[in-house]
Amino acid sequence: MAESVDLNADVGEYDGRAGSTTDAALIPHVTSVNIACGFHAGDDLSMRDTVRLAVRHGVAVGAHPAFRDREHFGRRELNVPRAELEALVMAQVSALAAMAADEGTAVTHVKPHGALYHMAARDAASADAVAAAVRAVNPALVLVGLAGSELIAAGTRAGLRTASEVFADRAYRADGSLVPRGEPGAVIHDPAEVAARAVDLVTRRDLRAETICVHGDTPGAAMLAAGIRRALEEAGIRVRALTR
Amino acid sequence: MAESVDLNADVGEYDGRAGSTTDAALIPHVTSVNIACGFHAGDDLSMRDTVRLAVRHGVAVGAHPAFRDREHFGRRELNVPRAELEALVMAQVSALAAMAADEGTAVTHVKPHGALYHMAARDAASADAVAAAVRAVNPALVLVGLAGSELIAAGTRAGLRTASEVFADRAYRADGSLVPRGEPGAVIHDPAEVAARAVDLVTRRDLRAETICVHGDTPGAAMLAAGIRRALEEAGIRVRALTR
Amino acid sequence: MAESVDLNADVGEYDGRAGSTTDAALIPHVTSVNIACGFHAGDDLSMRDTVRLAVRHGVAVGAHPAFRDREHFGRRELNVPRAELEALVMAQVSALAAMAADEGTAVTHVKPHGALYHMAARDAASADAVAAAVRAVNPALVLVGLAGSELIAAGTRAGLRTASEVFADRAYRADGSLVPRGEPGAVIHDPAEVAARAVDLVTRRDLRAETICVHGDTPGAAMLAAGIRRALEEAGIRVRALTR
Amino acid sequence: MAESVDLNADVGEYDGRAGSTTDAALIPHVTSVNIACGFHAGDDLSMRDTVRLAVRHGVAVGAHPAFRDREHFGRRELNVPRAELEALVMAQVSALAAMAADEGTAVTHVKPHGALYHMAARDAASADAVAAAVRAVNPALVLVGLAGSELIAAGTRAGLRTASEVFADRAYRADGSLVPRGEPGAVIHDPAEVAARAVDLVTRRDLRAETICVHGDTPGAAMLAAGIRRALEEAGIRVRALTR
Repeated sequence: MAESVDLNADVGEYDGRAGSTTDAALIPHVTSVNIACGFHAGDDLSMRDTVRLAVRHGVAVGAHPAFRDREHFGRRELNVPRAELEALVMAQVSALAAMAADEGTAVTHVKPHGALYHMAARDAASADAVAAAVRAVNPALVLVGLAGSELIAAGTRAGLRTASEVFADRAYRADGSLVPRGEPGAVIHDPAEVAARAVDLVTRRDLRAETICVHGDTPGAAMLAAGIRRALEEAGIRVRALTR
Repeated sequence: MAESVDLNADVGEYDGRAGSTTDAALIPHVTSVNIACGFHAGDDLSMRDTVRLAVRHGVAVGAHPAFRDREHFGRRELNVPRAELEALVMAQVSALAAMAADEGTAVTHVKPHGALYHMAARDAASADAVAAAVRAVNPALVLVGLAGSELIAAGTRAGLRTASEVFADRAYRADGSLVPRGEPGAVIHDPAEVAARAVDLVTRRDLRAETICVHGDTPGAAMLAAGIRRALEEAGIRVRALTR
Repeated sequence: MAESVDLNADVGEYDGRAGSTTDAALIPHVTSVNIACGFHAGDDLSMRDTVRLAVRHGVAVGAHPAFRDREHFGRRELNVPRAELEALVMAQVSALAAMAADEGTAVTHVKPHGALYHMAARDAASADAVAAAVRAVNPALVLVGLAGSELIAAGTRAGLRTASEVFADRAYRADGSLVPRGEPGAVIHDPAEVAARAVDLVTRRDLRAETICVHGDTPGAAMLAAGIRRALEEAGIRVRALTR
Repeated sequence: MAESVDLNADVGEYDGRAGSTTDAALIPHVTSVNIACGFHAGDDLSMRDTVRLAVRHGVAVGAHPAFRDREHFGRRELNVPRAELEALVMAQVSALAAMAADEGTAVTHVKPHGALYHMAARDAASADAVAAAVRAVNPALVLVGLAGSELIAAGTRAGLRTASEVFADRAYRADGSLVPRGEPGAVIHDPAEVAARAVDLVTRRDLRAETICVHGDTPGAAMLAAGIRRALEEAGIRVRALTR
């Protein structure tokens, strides 16, 4: 059976510093990007510039909505009412969608960022709020979440197409759950091993791996992405965006 | 000839304080509202709640985009590059549009707020950026600006329908320009006089008056709006939203 | 026995709108002000301007620190680590202290705002963090908190002088606790009754009332403050700042 | 004649991402740090944590105040009134001073960040506002600015001790001014050449070099700082903090 997988990266997360350079190096090696929408990082201009960069390299454009928390880069869980959770996801996804449309492309997927990603992975009510917001903006959007998480289940409940995400630089247990950070061997640093694991994750039968995340904020991110992509292709796995 | 005019108010400009109460009293008396989009005031939730309030009272829903400046309520002119000006207007209008759609309605118009309104009234390049952004989100949107301003001219250049705004509580010169604040008699405080002026503004031939602004942050705003409306109707002027 | 009490108001809570006008009307009628420090409202300039206004009217200058949350006017409880809670109180109090010193006066007291006030009233750990922060900036500062609250207890534990606050427009139970908002009669609206209650609160034996809060964001706040003050003075209660 | 120079770095500029790791590597190699005060980056907690890190390594603690502009990392010039410019510098410096005092140390110097640094280098009125603010917080603070700039002149006018800063990774003209970025050879990338230039800058007679800036946000910043320090010491130049 011919396997295929998407390679995604979080981009547009800069604030006037050199982030755009990193993105420009990384984007050619992935098939999808998740663009920060100004709530945890980036701003209106970076959203637009990053859409253009994605278009230039032919990668799929996704929204990367987060809690309104620049101070902590969206990494702190905030206790917001469900109606507000929905509203903040809608605001971010629709703003990016408008910019994408103006650049002649369309947003294809949504992947929550940081604390919102983790909260929606664990908590069904939050997951339903995120899924409802995505559906409200456009029911054709693909919802990206942690493989096996509540967010994937919520997306399915909401009638959305979902994509299960895995991390090639993280160790997994036999049951398909992540080894928690802090435990020995939880994070894999060797680029060759990360690439080998990417192949392994896609071919495992106990874990659904539709998209692999490449962390863009590590110095060698572009090299790492290139290595993962090469390893996947050499293993006969087609690397392509979710909606292609 | 049967005249008609729109009565608009800026709403959703609260931050956890009692703004929503004021809005609830004022909205029944106007025909259009301009909803703050979280950049100068309001947040994702107030946007949604205010859309609902507008729907309940059958008034037209508009976006009220502003500079990203909560500290100064969007009242300070910021020197942002044109590409960013376009992007920030697009982000705000499209976010509100998504919420309106989810509530079963649609945004009908856009009126810039505060410093953005004044800058776009005076400066053709800024005005063109605002008009381009509005057009990019939806070319059917009506662009509201100061009567006789660069923003109205820019809207026309961009092929947008425009609506010229007048202020019933401000004195105008013979040439149709506003008497600057600070000059004697520039601001009219007497509700009866404000109502009479509203009628006068609509029937004047030297000034285009398609929508009248009611300032919502004054204590008796709801009473004032009701008074203006009554005076207009008694003068045989139909009070209705721009797109109806 | 000669009784005395302080009359305090929260001020400097504006964002480019007409707040300063309200403050100018209210400040002459109170003996202490709590100045917003830019985290929930106000900014660097309003802090300074409000210190000047307080100096001009001879009222005591206090800091009104809050969570970093302009979107919700500091009215939402945020789950911040204790070290950060301390740090954010220190940052706000010390910034105001510097401005006060530059205007030839000194900060005399600290009263937390909104959600921080309520959290510190209820939760001993939060209360200890606030008290530690105040003490770190200046151990001579008076800590203002809800009468009978954990914050008052924490201030005492930290060796700070404290001031117990009561609300003249709120009903109290026989045990000295507030009737919760939402219950019938919880909030008193009649100015004459509020003034009478202020006298009653100071003379009750079951409740410690060292400072009475006048809510400044209601339209008739200045009148209300004047009425309370007159009633207190007519009852032989001296109205003066905490440290005088 | 025995020369000496300070080696400074901008630190605490993180937002929930891995900045603290970089700081921990860099700080042991410098003699002074300029700590972000939450306006362009960092927050209340990072300020405190970075003060502790500085204390642990025995380096001088400085404040790094900036415009209130997280979206652009304080790199955009904002047109703020002079009174506000003073107030925002005072707020930042005094907040850091309180945290330093609580950690048993003291702020020794102030170096403006980004757009504020450049504006104060060029514009005498802005420079005077910054100097006045620093003086208001503590007249014993050293004001750090670009060598030969208006800020150094303003510091002298205000009676402050000043420290002239040079950049070892930038080319200078014969007259002591920086070769503008964009011109060939303006930025020096080779670590050995940067180290050699540091020595040259300190020993030149046409340029006052009291402190050398090490840019901390480049990947090899710690190595670079170590190299500069070694080169200086080998050339017989003592590397020490400004106030030691």
